[in-house]
Amino acid sequence: MTAFPYKLIATDARTSARRGVLTTAHGEVHTPLFMPVGTRATVKGVQTDKLHELGAQVVLSNTYHLFLRPGPELIAEAGGLHTFMNWDRAILTDSGGFLIFSLADTLKLSEDGVEFRSIVDGSKHFWTPEENMRIQQLIGADIAMQLDQCTAYPEEKDVVRAAVKRSADWGKRCLVAHTRADQALFGIVQGGVFADLRHESIERIGELNFAGFGIGGYSVGEPHELMFETLPEVCAALPKDKPRYLMGVGNPTTILNAIAAGVDMFDCVLPTRTARMGTAFSSAGRMNMRNAQYIHDFGPLDPECSCDTCQHYSRSYIRHLVTTKEMLGAILLSQHNLHYLLDLTARARAAIEEGSYAAFLNDWNSSPAAHDY
Amino acid sequence: MTAFPYKLIATDARTSARRGVLTTAHGEVHTPLFMPVGTRATVKGVQTDKLHELGAQVVLSNTYHLFLRPGPELIAEAGGLHTFMNWDRAILTDSGGFLIFSLADTLKLSEDGVEFRSIVDGSKHFWTPEENMRIQQLIGADIAMQLDQCTAYPEEKDVVRAAVKRSADWGKRCLVAHTRADQALFGIVQGGVFADLRHESIERIGELNFAGFGIGGYSVGEPHELMFETLPEVCAALPKDKPRYLMGVGNPTTILNAIAAGVDMFDCVLPTRTARMGTAFSSAGRMNMRNAQYIHDFGPLDPECSCDTCQHYSRSYIRHLVTTKEMLGAILLSQHNLHYLLDLTARARAAIEEGSYAAFLNDWNSSPAAHDY
Repeated sequence: MTAFPYKLIATDARTSARRGVLTTAHGEVHTPLFMPVGTRATVKGVQTDKLHELGAQVVLSNTYHLFLRPGPELIAEAGGLHTFMNWDRAILTDSGGFLIFSLADTLKLSEDGVEFRSIVDGSKHFWTPEENMRIQQLIGADIAMQLDQCTAYPEEKDVVRAAVKRSADWGKRCLVAHTRADQALFGIVQGGVFADLRHESIERIGELNFAGFGIGGYSVGEPHELMFETLPEVCAALPKDKPRYLMGVGNPTTILNAIAAGVDMFDCVLPTRTARMGTAFSSAGRMNMRNAQYIHDFGPLDPECSCDTCQHYSRSYIRHLVTTKEMLGAILLSQHNLHYLLDLTARARAAIEEGSYAAFLNDWNSSPAAHDY
Repeated sequence: MTAFPYKLIATDARTSARRGVLTTAHGEVHTPLFMPVGTRATVKGVQTDKLHELGAQVVLSNTYHLFLRPGPELIAEAGGLHTFMNWDRAILTDSGGFLIFSLADTLKLSEDGVEFRSIVDGSKHFWTPEENMRIQQLIGADIAMQLDQCTAYPEEKDVVRAAVKRSADWGKRCLVAHTRADQALFGIVQGGVFADLRHESIERIGELNFAGFGIGGYSVGEPHELMFETLPEVCAALPKDKPRYLMGVGNPTTILNAIAAGVDMFDCVLPTRTARMGTAFSSAGRMNMRNAQYIHDFGPLDPECSCDTCQHYSRSYIRHLVTTKEMLGAILLSQHNLHYLLDLTARARAAIEEGSYAAFLNDWNSSPAAHDY
């Protein structure tokens, strides 16, 4: 596939970190990168002009939620998701597979597809890989993901093995069904925490004509350390000339360590979801803005941060907004937390280009910012 | 009082509309104007950079709410409300009197002041006019309002008469207690729907050394027509060289008709509160964005509107946001509704300058936009 070329412009000598450029129908995407999540065609509380200013390159949206409301036909009628949500840079849609498995109480899985119930109105739906491709092509993101079967943690190995096979079979059907020339299609590697199943998954789909690969089935409840036991070899086994996207990871330290393992793309609701709960990311580690220690603190959230929130608002004011449940608290914290991850990944890109990523990561891991989120 | 001069730059020949400029410590304020309400030091869902872009000249904040949280001492410690909330244009604080009377289940009123309970934690507080001035001076708005007694509608005339006298007595004590040189102090006219009591109120305070006058006790439940039976003579009886502020009025048609009666300033939560409920102001009248008629409507909220929301987002998208309870729906509608009133009052100012206000008002009153909100 040459329609969506991925060009490596630097690789780190001492780690597996890569600095690349993926060409999409809505411009170049510089990796490694973090993608803010706009579940229902909106990054909660953040206008797209602010996302522009924050330097977001790709927004992720969720096929499951968009399928239920407002529906893919309506989005197509609006001129596609970019027009509908007023975002002129790249968009990625997940397939919805993960949400079906994690949200639906009752689902029926078969070789042919998955039957599930809507969380909105309880209505029944049946998705084949072909139907999922139809939906994602109507939505019109720049990058679509194959329909896959994501397994939980912990899970029996036989179940994970079956999911690896099924995901590969569905991936092949997605490739056949996918015809939209301005949309890249990524395959998804499964296999849970089992190294042999991860390799089997890559053997099944690694050589197929996908524009990139999602790495799914991590960050589903297992300790981060356990993920890192297999993530480096998963990356090493994937084709070098295609981007690798570790799905659902947004913890800053995990992102930086995964970049060192060879991951190129990340997404997570963590920065915006924790913002709505009053949490700020910072170079001194996680801050709970409900805490009384900030009542008389008129400094910025993070003295090292250059974001609009930190330039204009104090910890004291943000604590006031959070404790009085004012929308602006969630808005300002969401923008700050997104800036934090977007800036962090921009600095990671610069470090890889300069050949200093190992030192950059070492500094990070020994800093107070490396606390877990 | 010359510290906060109010200069009339145009008066309309056929109505009592006036075009003026009030000088405050944070710049000139061009009247007539609408002031967005930022109850707890934030206009709900709207960042101050957006308020700038929208052309807001004054933001109103509520002394009652700020007194409870975060407290006036904290705001003073932050450097005043402008610094605390990141707003560099003018601010007006109400005295909190209206909220005490409308929110508190139990309050004890005496000649000396008012005892009330906090809606936050039930704690008891006692405000004298002097204490209220101390609080408002700590908060540090450009315009403070005297503590007054606002009466409801309907109300016994004797009760309203007593409130007129008490408000005047408290106004005089506020004038004595108020010492902050960079803050203007407005008196408040009461009297309900009784013309003679309105005149009595103005006789008691109209010649006092206030920088302007609030007109309170309207828009408390009475029909708009009833207000207009006395509002013109209230305006006519007030000093010509001081601004007149009709408190709590935000209905577009009422604003324009009140301008014709001689009112200069307005505030109301209407544009932002209705926005959070999914209502858009428009040149075609009120729109309920939950309505199914907008599902496939890809036009702007108001084709005649130049706001950012109308330039970039469709009715269909906003309906999607409102029905899925996404914050962005309230944000975009709040900005649009504020723009609507700020633009409307800017056009009113231009019409007065051009000597065409009567025609402007006639056109409005015969347009679909004149529907009630």
